[in-house]
Amino acid sequence: MPRISTKGKNMPESPIRKLVPYAESAKKKGIKVFHLNIGQPDIKTPTVALNAIKNNTIKVLAYSRSEGSEEYREKIAKYYAKNNIDVTANDIIVTTGGSEALLFAMGSIADPGDEIIIPEPFYANYNGFSIASGVKIVPVVSKIEDNFALPPISEFEKLITSKTKAILICNPGNPTGYLYSKEEIEKLATIVKKHDLFIIADEVYREFVYDNVQHQSILHNFGLENNAIIIDSVSKRYSMCGARIGCLVSKNKEVISTALKFAQARLSPPTFAQIASEAALATPQSYFEEVIVEYKKRRDVLIEELRKIKGIKVASPKGAFYCVVELPVDNADAFAQWLLEEFNLNNETVMVAPAAGFYSTQGFGTKQIRIAYVLKKEDLITAVSIIKAGLEQYNKN
Amino acid sequence: MPRISTKGKNMPESPIRKLVPYAESAKKKGIKVFHLNIGQPDIKTPTVALNAIKNNTIKVLAYSRSEGSEEYREKIAKYYAKNNIDVTANDIIVTTGGSEALLFAMGSIADPGDEIIIPEPFYANYNGFSIASGVKIVPVVSKIEDNFALPPISEFEKLITSKTKAILICNPGNPTGYLYSKEEIEKLATIVKKHDLFIIADEVYREFVYDNVQHQSILHNFGLENNAIIIDSVSKRYSMCGARIGCLVSKNKEVISTALKFAQARLSPPTFAQIASEAALATPQSYFEEVIVEYKKRRDVLIEELRKIKGIKVASPKGAFYCVVELPVDNADAFAQWLLEEFNLNNETVMVAPAAGFYSTQGFGTKQIRIAYVLKKEDLITAVSIIKAGLEQYNKN
Repeated sequence: MPRISTKGKNMPESPIRKLVPYAESAKKKGIKVFHLNIGQPDIKTPTVALNAIKNNTIKVLAYSRSEGSEEYREKIAKYYAKNNIDVTANDIIVTTGGSEALLFAMGSIADPGDEIIIPEPFYANYNGFSIASGVKIVPVVSKIEDNFALPPISEFEKLITSKTKAILICNPGNPTGYLYSKEEIEKLATIVKKHDLFIIADEVYREFVYDNVQHQSILHNFGLENNAIIIDSVSKRYSMCGARIGCLVSKNKEVISTALKFAQARLSPPTFAQIASEAALATPQSYFEEVIVEYKKRRDVLIEELRKIKGIKVASPKGAFYCVVELPVDNADAFAQWLLEEFNLNNETVMVAPAAGFYSTQGFGTKQIRIAYVLKKEDLITAVSIIKAGLEQYNKN
Repeated sequence: MPRISTKGKNMPESPIRKLVPYAESAKKKGIKVFHLNIGQPDIKTPTVALNAIKNNTIKVLAYSRSEGSEEYREKIAKYYAKNNIDVTANDIIVTTGGSEALLFAMGSIADPGDEIIIPEPFYANYNGFSIASGVKIVPVVSKIEDNFALPPISEFEKLITSKTKAILICNPGNPTGYLYSKEEIEKLATIVKKHDLFIIADEVYREFVYDNVQHQSILHNFGLENNAIIIDSVSKRYSMCGARIGCLVSKNKEVISTALKFAQARLSPPTFAQIASEAALATPQSYFEEVIVEYKKRRDVLIEELRKIKGIKVASPKGAFYCVVELPVDNADAFAQWLLEEFNLNNETVMVAPAAGFYSTQGFGTKQIRIAYVLKKEDLITAVSIIKAGLEQYNKN
C-alpha cells in the first residue's frame, strides 16, 4: 500500500466545514439548522454581475490570460484608485479566489522551513495554505479582552528570526472582526521595513467597516511599496463566493513577475467568473450602502443578544461579519457538535465554527467559537436563543 | 528590500506562453500569427453547456461543496462507468482544472525532497507544480525515434529510491501524442505495486484517440485500486479550457480524504463552471464523433506536410492533439522567437512552443518544438509552409 505524505497528514480539517456531516444528519432528522459557521452571505449577488453571465456570447470557452484579462485588471486598478490605492493593471494578478492569491504569495516569498508571523486567531485556512507551502506559521497572540487588537509590536520583534519572511494580517479580521487603526499599520510598517520583511494583508472585507471608521490599506501612504502584498477577492464584496475570483496586488515588480510564473503554471483563472467579476465593478454604490446598513444591524443585534447570556465573552467587531465568542464550556468543539447531534429547540439548531482551528497554538481558543452574522436579524435572534438554551442544558448535564 | 523565495526563482517560465510578447509585437506590425503553441482548440463548446449558463437562475452565487456538488460527482461517476472506469461519487473530488488536481495529488502523496518519476518530454507545467510542491521530478527519457513509447521498465527500476513516491504519466501524451498500450500499462502496474508507489495518470485527452485504438485507463482492470490517481479535466473534452474544472479520482480512500483537506482549504471549485461542466456531460455522442474526425484529419495533414520538410523528424501521434517535431536547427527556442520577431511569409507567421521546456533534463529537446494541431486544416497547411520557408531562410543566414 503506497503511503500519503506527512504534509497531507498534517493538513488540518477545516473548522468551518468539519461539522458538516453532523449538520446533514440533523437535517435528515427534520431539524432546521441555522448556519453561522461559514461566511456565506445570504445577500443577493448584484444583478449587473448575474446579467453579464446570462448575456454572454461565448462560443468557445477559452483560456484567458494567466494574469487575468487586460480589461478586467484595468478596471480593478480604477476600483483601487477610488479606495486611495494607487496601482496599475500591471501590479495585479487575477487569481482563483483569495485562496489562490495567498498560495501564490506564500510560494513567491517563502521556502519550506521559512516563517510567517500572524496574529492569532487568524483565518483558519492560513494553516492549510502554510502546510501546503511548507511554511511555518509563527503566531502572536491577540486577546478577546482587547477585542483582538494588534499585540504590542515588541511581541512581533521577539519572534523575528533569519527565517522570517513576512507578517500576515487580515484587515478587517476574520474571525475577529477587528479593524486595524492607522497607528497599528504604521507600527507594522516600521517593523517590516526595519527587518526587510514582506507584509501580506488580506483585505477582502475592505468594504465591511461599520461605525464610520476608515479602512487602512497597507498600500495607503505607509511607504510599503516594496513590502506590501494585498490579497483580495470578490467573494464577500459582491456576495459572489462561488465565483472564485480574487487577486494579488503588489508594487514590488519581482513579486508580480514571480507570482505570474505560478499563475502561468495553472494556465488561467475561470473565464465565466471573470466576466461576472468585471461586471460587478459597476455595482451601484447604493448596493453597498444597503449591505453595510444590513450587516451593521445584524452585528448590533447579535452582540446585544449574545451579551445577555451569562458567562459569555464577546469581542466587539468593527468590520467583516464575524465575531469570536468565548463560551462557558470546556470544549467548544464538543459543544458545537452536541448542538447538531443532540440538541434542538423547537426543531431548530445552530451550526457554529469551533475557534480552536483559528489558532495555531495548541490548546488556544478551545472555549471559543466563531459566529458569522450572515443571516437576517430574526434568524440571528433565534440562533442566539438556541445557543442560550443549549448552553443551559449542556451545562446541566 | 525583502527577497523572493528560491522556489519562486526556480519556477520556470511557461514554454507555451513565454513567447507571447513577441507574438503581440508581430501582431502590432500587422502580421497574422497562427497559434500552434497552445492547446486552445478552436472547436465550439457544446451548446448544452453554454445554454446551462445562460439559463441559470442563481440569485446568490454561493460556495459549492469543497469536493464539488453531489449531483455533478454522481454524473461524473456515470461518465466513468461508460468508459469502463468503476468509481462512485465518493472517489471523485472536483477541482479547479486538471492543474489543481495535480497540485492536490502531489501535496497528498509527496513531501519536499520526495521524487516522482516521469517519462520526458512531459507536460511542461509538471515542472511548475513540482517546484511549487517542493517535489523533485526524476525524468526517464523517451525518444522521438520510438514515437515516445514507454521507455524500458528497467530504466524506471534504476531510478527508484526510498524517496520515490509515484510514477506520473500523461496518456494520451502531451506533448508527445503517444498512447500507452495495455502491455505498457501492465508493466507500469507491476512496478508500482512491487515498490508500493502511486501511479498518477493525466488522462485529460482520453477521448482524443485516433486509428480505432482503445484508450487504456489506469483504473481499468490493472489491479491498481490502491495505487491509481487519475487527473482529469473538462478543458479539452468539451473545448471548455476557460471553465477551469477538472477532477481527481482515486479508489484509495486515504488519498481522497487527504486531497479533500487541500480542497477544503481553498473552499470550493467555481460554481458557474460546475454548472456548465455538469450540463456538458449531456453532450451528444455525435459531437465527439465530429470532433475526432476533425482532429484526425488535422493530424494526418499536419504530419504529411511536415514530412515534406527536409531534415525534420516527426513523431507519429496516436492521441491528444500535439506532436513533437525535431527541426534542423541548433536552438528551436531561438528559431521560434525569430519566426515571430523577424520572419513572415505574405505577412503571416507561426507561434510554436519550444520543446526544451517539456524536458527536465538540461539540454534535452533543444532542437524540438511542440505543435498543437488546434487549427483548421487549411491553416495548418499554411502554417507548415511558413515553418518550411522560415527554416530555409533561417539556415541560409
